[in-house]
Amino acid sequence: MSAPSRVSAATRPDPEAGQATYDLDRAHVFHSWSAQDKISPLPVAGGENATFWDFEGNEYLDFNSQMVNLNLGHQHPKLVQAIQEQAGKLATIAPSFANDTRSEAARLIAGVAPEGMNHVFFTNGGAEAVENAVRMARIHAGRDKVMAAYRSYHGATATAITLTGEPRRFNNRHTDGGVVHFQGPYTYQSPFWSENEEQESERALEHLERQIVLEGAHTIAAIIMEPVVGGMGVIVPPVGYLKGLKEICDKYGILFIADEVMVGFGRCGTWFTFENFDVTPDLITFAKGSNSGYVPLGGVVISDKIHDTFAEKPFPGGLTYSGHPLACAPVVATFEVFEEENILERVRDLGERVVRPRLEELREKHAIVGDVRGLGLFWAIELVKDKETREPLVPYNPSGDQMTPMNEFAAACKKAGLWPYIGMNRTHIAPPLTISEEDLLRGLDIIDEALGGIGGYAG
Amino acid sequence: MSAPSRVSAATRPDPEAGQATYDLDRAHVFHSWSAQDKISPLPVAGGENATFWDFEGNEYLDFNSQMVNLNLGHQHPKLVQAIQEQAGKLATIAPSFANDTRSEAARLIAGVAPEGMNHVFFTNGGAEAVENAVRMARIHAGRDKVMAAYRSYHGATATAITLTGEPRRFNNRHTDGGVVHFQGPYTYQSPFWSENEEQESERALEHLERQIVLEGAHTIAAIIMEPVVGGMGVIVPPVGYLKGLKEICDKYGILFIADEVMVGFGRCGTWFTFENFDVTPDLITFAKGSNSGYVPLGGVVISDKIHDTFAEKPFPGGLTYSGHPLACAPVVATFEVFEEENILERVRDLGERVVRPRLEELREKHAIVGDVRGLGLFWAIELVKDKETREPLVPYNPSGDQMTPMNEFAAACKKAGLWPYIGMNRTHIAPPLTISEEDLLRGLDIIDEALGGIGGYAG
Repeated sequence: MSAPSRVSAATRPDPEAGQATYDLDRAHVFHSWSAQDKISPLPVAGGENATFWDFEGNEYLDFNSQMVNLNLGHQHPKLVQAIQEQAGKLATIAPSFANDTRSEAARLIAGVAPEGMNHVFFTNGGAEAVENAVRMARIHAGRDKVMAAYRSYHGATATAITLTGEPRRFNNRHTDGGVVHFQGPYTYQSPFWSENEEQESERALEHLERQIVLEGAHTIAAIIMEPVVGGMGVIVPPVGYLKGLKEICDKYGILFIADEVMVGFGRCGTWFTFENFDVTPDLITFAKGSNSGYVPLGGVVISDKIHDTFAEKPFPGGLTYSGHPLACAPVVATFEVFEEENILERVRDLGERVVRPRLEELREKHAIVGDVRGLGLFWAIELVKDKETREPLVPYNPSGDQMTPMNEFAAACKKAGLWPYIGMNRTHIAPPLTISEEDLLRGLDIIDEALGGIGGYAG
Repeated sequence: MSAPSRVSAATRPDPEAGQATYDLDRAHVFHSWSAQDKISPLPVAGGENATFWDFEGNEYLDFNSQMVNLNLGHQHPKLVQAIQEQAGKLATIAPSFANDTRSEAARLIAGVAPEGMNHVFFTNGGAEAVENAVRMARIHAGRDKVMAAYRSYHGATATAITLTGEPRRFNNRHTDGGVVHFQGPYTYQSPFWSENEEQESERALEHLERQIVLEGAHTIAAIIMEPVVGGMGVIVPPVGYLKGLKEICDKYGILFIADEVMVGFGRCGTWFTFENFDVTPDLITFAKGSNSGYVPLGGVVISDKIHDTFAEKPFPGGLTYSGHPLACAPVVATFEVFEEENILERVRDLGERVVRPRLEELREKHAIVGDVRGLGLFWAIELVKDKETREPLVPYNPSGDQMTPMNEFAAACKKAGLWPYIGMNRTHIAPPLTISEEDLLRGLDIIDEALGGIGGYAG
């Protein structure tokens, strides 16, 4: 395993600036999801496409895409240019006006949404998209409850964090009393004692419908779900599940909100990931990939029937930065880049031709690799103590020490020049969609070797 | 009253582009707080400092600052440049890393906060700032309830909209069961039968303390308040009120959250508006003025004691765009501009020397002007049917028809080339802090004339 490559002279190391950045960070920046005295944030000096580098001159292949955010990589010149031009033209305007860039971004997003979904409500990020989708659903349906899956992440504002099904919710207040959680399908670690994907799909649907009836179907406004579960494990729903879920929704007059914040905009090889599962949602939430997070943005794509609920009656939600022109400019550029660089086809090709076979090799080779799964350029390698029992290498919601093997794995990756995505007993493969095939293969080689280094934790 | 001035050739009219923008907006953009079929958003083509213009070539003096957002006006060259440079350098990086621009923005903000408030948690806007301040307060205090004033606005995510005390909450769910509302001081329309400012302050404090005791002081984590109430009427607290509120908080171990989203960063002639009232909060929320909203940003300034609660124990909140470098760059530039253009002194000077006397003239002149009040470059003109009874010209939470006089006033202002801020029976004066004295006086003249036009609604 080679040492991290050194960056070019154009980005020469500047350890002093790195230290100053670090010192000021520790003195004044309060960090997300962290015990403030237990973190040592790496100062990042710059990035380009699938690579970023620190002030010491170490380069890292970005297999995390900054939290599955930078779908078009670091510093894509078209997106940078779009921001610079919009800043020079009109950085912002209140949402009550009309703006050409905002109009165009909305047109483009509606253009790739299913028929009958023609309007976009813009927010500042994914959490606010979820908050507003739920607000729309409740008012449209005239019902209060919203169902969400365990093993899900939907954001950190009050309703969004209550909807979230994973441990980041544990130390938060259950503020939204209308939220109800259910167990979704997870073929590899089935909660339904199923033996294959088909059975998992059937049983998960049966389980869901039972819970809906027990909860009172007529009290449920919506079900929200990530079409491929993101941060909680790249769980691709088994064949028929999402279609079946939507049929159950329709049967009981329940709306389906597809949370595409992490998986939308090409991550799984289609504009929206639900497209892979023969299903049309009533509301779609998006953020991250829509402009690669270069400017904070999120939003909700709205079906005509829900839009019409607010045709004559005011929608009781809003925000100062809704439809922010500077955030919409790189959305417009994103659509251009997707076409010019043939992003969707490339993602599907790299996923099936390059990633899948290589990960299947890793599963054969390493005793600790229990499952590999994914779609497009979004994959998980799930690590286990034993392939037979499928006991996870570290438990759900691990405490510090229990993460030791994963921490060793992460350290080995970083040492070899790859910044990995770690989640409990998994590493995810989520590079920019623009990563070169060579870098993708190089990254997978680094993961292969790092897995070898923690093989002793198996059994 | 002259017709709207025409813009220069550099921004020549382009009605066709305006129509296209409008048509696409109506086809695809879902608007905040609106009945979607009842709005006709004006397409805006550009702006400069205190002026913006449409595609027809009409210019408007911006007395609203795009929802009290653009403290440094439209297209300030220093802010534009900072964004363009940061976009070219590093548009974004995940919050778990350290970043030089973010570090510097945090240092500068902490530098103008009170002693003992050294850390900043960045969010995407004001609502998320409020959500996270409340999250911190509840965990730090180990108590659940949060008190907020009626006649307040704190944002539109679930906890923020529950805290909000004005009608935008009415059609929203009371999602956060820990929120309790109280009546704050409002000398002109006293809820405490007081006869002067001193009595209003005393009685408002007595009323608040009684409610705290009745609610159970030991169950209350925090009180959140706008140091000058913004959207709900530019209500400047009477002398002694905020200081007394903080003393009550301290007596019962309750934290004080100063919501500076609208009034922070110079609006009232100081960095933070609470500085005018001899009080130090435990948490400060900010957004808008921190970078004039050129890039979505908000945040919380955190006291050391609350920071330390999360030194060893993780803070259970976060977001992908926290400390976004592109949003932090214009924060840094904002500090430079405030110094170079002597913004704070200029705001205090224009407020007292130019605005106050002119508004007092209007109060003497017009039968419908009941009260004028404000601080810095943030003022309200409150309209009444009768100066003796102080009956508002339109009622609280007016329905469409009841707004007729205000709509006529707004139309007259727009026709004369001024975009006003209208809230129920008030117009607010909230221009960019960089407005020229000439434009400020011109705007006040337009308001004078427009008030004359609706004088017939009095009595």
